[in-house]
Amino acid sequence: MNDKDLHSHHISQQFNSALDDVKTRMLEMGGIVEKQVADATTAFMNLDTGLAEEVNRGDELVNALEVAIDEECTIILARRQPAASDLRLILSISKVLSDLERMGDEAGKVADSAIKLAELGGLPRSVLEIRHIGDHVGAMVRNALDAFARFDSNMALQVAKEDRAVDLEYGTAMRSLVTYMMEDPRSISSVLQVLWALRSLERIGDHARNIAEHVIYLVKGADVRHADLDEMAATIKDSK
Amino acid sequence: MNDKDLHSHHISQQFNSALDDVKTRMLEMGGIVEKQVADATTAFMNLDTGLAEEVNRGDELVNALEVAIDEECTIILARRQPAASDLRLILSISKVLSDLERMGDEAGKVADSAIKLAELGGLPRSVLEIRHIGDHVGAMVRNALDAFARFDSNMALQVAKEDRAVDLEYGTAMRSLVTYMMEDPRSISSVLQVLWALRSLERIGDHARNIAEHVIYLVKGADVRHADLDEMAATIKDSK
Repeated sequence: MNDKDLHSHHISQQFNSALDDVKTRMLEMGGIVEKQVADATTAFMNLDTGLAEEVNRGDELVNALEVAIDEECTIILARRQPAASDLRLILSISKVLSDLERMGDEAGKVADSAIKLAELGGLPRSVLEIRHIGDHVGAMVRNALDAFARFDSNMALQVAKEDRAVDLEYGTAMRSLVTYMMEDPRSISSVLQVLWALRSLERIGDHARNIAEHVIYLVKGADVRHADLDEMAATIKDSK
Repeated sequence: MNDKDLHSHHISQQFNSALDDVKTRMLEMGGIVEKQVADATTAFMNLDTGLAEEVNRGDELVNALEVAIDEECTIILARRQPAASDLRLILSISKVLSDLERMGDEAGKVADSAIKLAELGGLPRSVLEIRHIGDHVGAMVRNALDAFARFDSNMALQVAKEDRAVDLEYGTAMRSLVTYMMEDPRSISSVLQVLWALRSLERIGDHARNIAEHVIYLVKGADVRHADLDEMAATIKDSK
């Protein structure tokens, strides 16, 4: 290796480490958001207002991380001017940050609903739907982040499939809660808190699907936003 | 001007025209989304299922535009490797695209609720809240796009202020609709469609605020996501 090669080798090592660093920080932020989602679900099920307030406080950290890591992405773009797959990685990370931040917001809304439901005295009926959909969506978040960490497009496709399952569960839960409200109109205010929380969880699932789409874009170079599951599966298969 | 200068002048002209082109296309997409929001509101008020279905069909165009314009942004980043304010412009455009696409989704949800409400036979009571908040949010979308077109951070601050006003109107409308449901439980299914539509409109306002924040970032270089209105106003004033 001559001096010039050694120099450019050194530069590219620095670059790789900056890329790895920003990816690691994004995944750490993802871990925090994953915990926010789990805690918000638990706070709702147990009407634990202390835990709900903790989730709300945690949202500030998530917001700050979004801004800080996105700034790192911009600096890498400006200084290193990455091309091809490195460019795609940075752009994907920047978009995942925005999805994670919105998941954090939705977890905060679940926590708000938990606090309001506790103030209203809870519900006479258990709301197992929240536990069930909360756990399902929590697993999607974890798997979407794992798929990103490993650049695993098959795992990403699985997350997109789960999103459809969550949407169906959400529809069933909504119908059962509407029936409940009609049978007991005094429960309307309380049941609405459950509806809002369910809707937020369903959104978190949508954002997990977005992250999965970014993974497929990264690995396969194909933009599968707005593609249906069959098209997505074909993209993954075709470009193998 | 010597040959070399002439050449780099030519290159920079090409670059400026690529930047202008992508900005123009994003603003055109914004115009389409603005119309989607207005049409969805009108469809809801008039229970016009034909117009609602038109809004839903339009969503495919919005999705396709997001992907196509974002691809243009990536190509500019890869080929031109812009720095400083040009880099900020491209990154902001890419983020605004995502907000516009989500606004289009929310307009589609308002249209879905209009169709469901029409199937349920409408509401005995007029829902002027939808008209009022729909118009208010429609103006925010228009002003946020105008602020972007003119790089006008004061106008952007105004949009952020309007978002707070919309949130208050939304809260009032929600409470009045919940009271209505309690007084007439047979109306629950119909009123829920109004609640969902209102929530979607409120979200569209949030996305307009996001666009306003991108304008402030562009003009002032300060990331004001998650800043409150006073901090935002101080940022605009300080860096004048």
